[in-house]
Amino acid sequence: MQDSRSKPCSCPSLKLREVASMYFTMVAAFLVILVVALQGSAPRESHFPYKVPLDPQGLLELAWNVSYPEQAVHFQLLIRELQFGLLFGMSDRGEFENADLAVLWSDGHNSYFGDAWSDAEGQLHMDSQQDYQLLGARRAPEGLYLLFRRAFSTCDPKDYLIEDGTVHLIYGILEKPVHSLQAINASALRGGLQRVQLLKPNISTPELPSDMKTMEITAPNVVIPSQETTYWCYMAELPAGFPKHHIIMYEPVVTAGNEALVHHMEVFQCAAEFDSFPHYSGPCDSKMKPERLNYCRHVLAAWAMGAQAFYYPEEAGLAFGGPGSSRYLRLEIHYHNPLVFRGRRDSSGIRLYYTATLRPYDAGIMELGLVYTPVMAIPPGEDNFTLTGYCTDKCTQLALPAAGIRIFASQLHTHLAGRKVVTVLSRDGRERQVVNADGHYSPHFQEIRMLKEVVAVFPGDELITTCTYNTEDRSRATVGGFGILEEMCVNYVHYYPQTQLELCKSAVDPGYLHRYFNLVNRFNDEEICMCPQVSVPQQFYSIPWNTFNRDVLKSLYGFAPISVHCNKSSAVRFPGEWEKQPLPSITERLPEPVPRCPPAPGPQPAAPVPLNLGQLRR
Amino acid sequence: MQDSRSKPCSCPSLKLREVASMYFTMVAAFLVILVVALQGSAPRESHFPYKVPLDPQGLLELAWNVSYPEQAVHFQLLIRELQFGLLFGMSDRGEFENADLAVLWSDGHNSYFGDAWSDAEGQLHMDSQQDYQLLGARRAPEGLYLLFRRAFSTCDPKDYLIEDGTVHLIYGILEKPVHSLQAINASALRGGLQRVQLLKPNISTPELPSDMKTMEITAPNVVIPSQETTYWCYMAELPAGFPKHHIIMYEPVVTAGNEALVHHMEVFQCAAEFDSFPHYSGPCDSKMKPERLNYCRHVLAAWAMGAQAFYYPEEAGLAFGGPGSSRYLRLEIHYHNPLVFRGRRDSSGIRLYYTATLRPYDAGIMELGLVYTPVMAIPPGEDNFTLTGYCTDKCTQLALPAAGIRIFASQLHTHLAGRKVVTVLSRDGRERQVVNADGHYSPHFQEIRMLKEVVAVFPGDELITTCTYNTEDRSRATVGGFGILEEMCVNYVHYYPQTQLELCKSAVDPGYLHRYFNLVNRFNDEEICMCPQVSVPQQFYSIPWNTFNRDVLKSLYGFAPISVHCNKSSAVRFPGEWEKQPLPSITERLPEPVPRCPPAPGPQPAAPVPLNLGQLRR
Repeated sequence: MQDSRSKPCSCPSLKLREVASMYFTMVAAFLVILVVALQGSAPRESHFPYKVPLDPQGLLELAWNVSYPEQAVHFQLLIRELQFGLLFGMSDRGEFENADLAVLWSDGHNSYFGDAWSDAEGQLHMDSQQDYQLLGARRAPEGLYLLFRRAFSTCDPKDYLIEDGTVHLIYGILEKPVHSLQAINASALRGGLQRVQLLKPNISTPELPSDMKTMEITAPNVVIPSQETTYWCYMAELPAGFPKHHIIMYEPVVTAGNEALVHHMEVFQCAAEFDSFPHYSGPCDSKMKPERLNYCRHVLAAWAMGAQAFYYPEEAGLAFGGPGSSRYLRLEIHYHNPLVFRGRRDSSGIRLYYTATLRPYDAGIMELGLVYTPVMAIPPGEDNFTLTGYCTDKCTQLALPAAGIRIFASQLHTHLAGRKVVTVLSRDGRERQVVNADGHYSPHFQEIRMLKEVVAVFPGDELITTCTYNTEDRSRATVGGFGILEEMCVNYVHYYPQTQLELCKSAVDPGYLHRYFNLVNRFNDEEICMCPQVSVPQQFYSIPWNTFNRDVLKSLYGFAPISVHCNKSSAVRFPGEWEKQPLPSITERLPEPVPRCPPAPGPQPAAPVPLNLGQLRR
Repeated sequence: MQDSRSKPCSCPSLKLREVASMYFTMVAAFLVILVVALQGSAPRESHFPYKVPLDPQGLLELAWNVSYPEQAVHFQLLIRELQFGLLFGMSDRGEFENADLAVLWSDGHNSYFGDAWSDAEGQLHMDSQQDYQLLGARRAPEGLYLLFRRAFSTCDPKDYLIEDGTVHLIYGILEKPVHSLQAINASALRGGLQRVQLLKPNISTPELPSDMKTMEITAPNVVIPSQETTYWCYMAELPAGFPKHHIIMYEPVVTAGNEALVHHMEVFQCAAEFDSFPHYSGPCDSKMKPERLNYCRHVLAAWAMGAQAFYYPEEAGLAFGGPGSSRYLRLEIHYHNPLVFRGRRDSSGIRLYYTATLRPYDAGIMELGLVYTPVMAIPPGEDNFTLTGYCTDKCTQLALPAAGIRIFASQLHTHLAGRKVVTVLSRDGRERQVVNADGHYSPHFQEIRMLKEVVAVFPGDELITTCTYNTEDRSRATVGGFGILEEMCVNYVHYYPQTQLELCKSAVDPGYLHRYFNLVNRFNDEEICMCPQVSVPQQFYSIPWNTFNRDVLKSLYGFAPISVHCNKSSAVRFPGEWEKQPLPSITERLPEPVPRCPPAPGPQPAAPVPLNLGQLRR
């Protein structure tokens, strides 16, 4: 289809070249010349600030940029070793079924690009609306670059809606020629998933001062264990007498070649009450790890794959050093090694940028959400159970300065059953603003994220954090707690100016939970021992989970008064009555966002775009 | 905008003419010449089989047809006395706010047609997508005909989705020139609403036999009372010794000129156990009405405004006459007289078409839904509370013939709080088919509706009827019962062959309801007397309706076992155990219908369509 608005392709005409595949003897080389009318505008410059490897070998590398004016993402996919095409796309939680896919495929003679979707069985179908728009292809020594564009929202019900928060990207390799897109089953392909925050906030980076210094907290010369998952712990130390400084920026230092293995890294400061901490470099779950390292839990810096440098706002910095601050730091690195490479060496870590010229405000970190207590529990077999923690008006009234605080970043946290997290700011009973939301949250991808907009919180405001859990694979109740099979619902918000309020969380009143246990005892005909001398988890474990007991637990959590933890540092509550507090009442909800649909992209073929393929050699 | 696909207007060019307004001295005449490019195809013939007056004077008359292949409705609106334009449209329940509107308006010089929507304050806005497509205008002695088309579903979130069941049509009169559509507030206009079933089923009418006879059951020479609402009762009588016949069709007989006043009519047969019934012609709520008329409740025929003739399927007829069948009939006419006309005479009624050549099957009527009992209650202040009644597999197993029954028509019934009704057929725990659904149900518009498709029900099937209620204007609980302020949830299904099963309904087990009252007593700190010696309504009235008590009532109704009424005629249960029956479990729901959007209607102005207006005279 020739469109009068088409621009000629600016890519060089590509020549045939054979590419040897590492894994297959049937080697195919795609040489792709773009002959179709280009849809949409090609990116103005080859500027893709965000980059992430898709596969553990780094053979597929995705770079992208985000255009908020256009409400679209431009992708540049580098395919180092092309066989008979590939699938790239998005799905709710990284599954290959019900996915939204851009597909490049070859029947051995011709090759095509199209927008497709996979059904509940993984079977591919051509999408009636073609929303992955091919912009170009470029051949380079390192591989084939494919450029395409996708609007955040397409209003096609078969398409994925690109939202803030985590996006589960998937890829699949076509290792054989396919005669049509309909012949592909995504679930049967070799492939994988990668989690990224696709919609990076569009915020300018503050200028850095001239007296800035850097410090690398890296674990030198680690041999990455030959197992899928390792959490590596390494102890570092600030110089003796290191005075108070402000961390104003930090960035990852990833050993070249290990980009696909270093999944995330965090630097924790140890507790100031201990004078010294032992040295250690080894797995965090090792029996050899000194017990005391568990007292190094105050986050200084956190990075996850796909994230860039983290800048503090220009008015604030994170204090470290000086009296009352431990000299000891713990670096934790999550190595993700699914192909079980052996003997790979790594010296990754985080580079801190800090200054002695203190900024006007110390930054602080506050915990919102649920108290770590078993009274908040999730029945087994739930696909979509929510728990909510409240930071109440009474607490913010007491603990926040009149001028308020500014939240500029947020890190969401649950354990393995967590699926969504959202914190909403409410004032006078009306929801005002989403502080941070992740509708595709994964406990395996916990970044500190800069907020698109700084959120001002004033005395009397309420911060309401709701987590959604899936316990379909569990046979007994999941209670709140520290264990990996227990649950948490936390939003660590980064803000300034620092206040004494370190924790503003809640849990259901235990007296009302006892009434629930009694009610379950009386209502159900069963003879269950739910005597009060039994622990709360034991009582939850003995409940027969029929729909009534499930529903009434939900109703209880939505009705019963709460116990509020409005705490200063070192677990000391602010003075006041914090038990049996009323639940904040919300009289006005934020409207559901209505997806903005892009203007109709002009006459579009609801058919694959044919590509001129050079000769195919075997 | 000129479109190459446009067809020239086939309507005659219109000449200026003055039309005297009955109510206003400022008289304006619109002479409308269609000059815009016609969008869509004009109806192939001027065939609009369905017709209804919109206003109580009949000055606005709507006729329409339904094209299922096009998934669109063609409207023909006759405006007998045009002033400065009018609004016509649809909204959830007939309100002028949040409505989807076609607007014809004049600024005194030019006139325009456009697709608009009204916001929550009634303020009009031009719709960004123009989905009411003007097809033409035609001048006739009786007034101006406006022809336009609307797809069932437009996928514009501001548009009303035309579905099966009741549609609330609204109209508003522009009595002054307006300078723009944005200057109109729909809530401030003189206007009204009319309920119709817009999507009439597309079924062919069976042939009628040659020996067919007719009988008119009409109330002769009634002086319509000068009040808004009257239910008129009139007793009629079959000839003595009238043998068994089959009613095979019936149609309304409406006195000419009273089309806008006769709202609905029903013919009931009286109970056979009484040998005679008194004559009566008068209001049904009169103190003079003989008590015995309350025993005339078996529906023979029902008609409501907008409905056409009702045909029985060719294999079946409704038996009347003969032994075991009362000779006495009660005709009930609902006169709707909001303008309080005085002295209007009426002789409307229903004409029955019947035959002595009996068809293979007697038709029957079965009641599905909830038993009339106070144990099923709705808390006050609910905007969307559902109650469900079950016809269980055990009952259909026992009462239906192996070859099953065929449901061909359905009449939904609730009292004043009813907002939606749906009956779903479930087999082996899987929802299979919607029997009848009305998402905009109104208790003021209870038609017998032919089903689009006959529904076959076999032994072991379940028929699940759910009603949605709104009690926002009530301050105490609404319990089930016969009173107009009590509630019902019923679907009268018309089927053949007739069986002994006259009633297949349910209600919550009363023992479980008592556990609920006890639980409410214990859980809430309040001291409420909910002693078992108090009646169920009294216990409901004394509940403090906090969210917990509301939620737990919902959970109870969704969990507790039921008492099933699986009854033969004269309230005799089929033999078997019908108490404490398990709720039918549904493992697979019907998918939500995904609205089919019409193909994009080509380049469309998101602006009003200007009409050439003749000279305007005052």
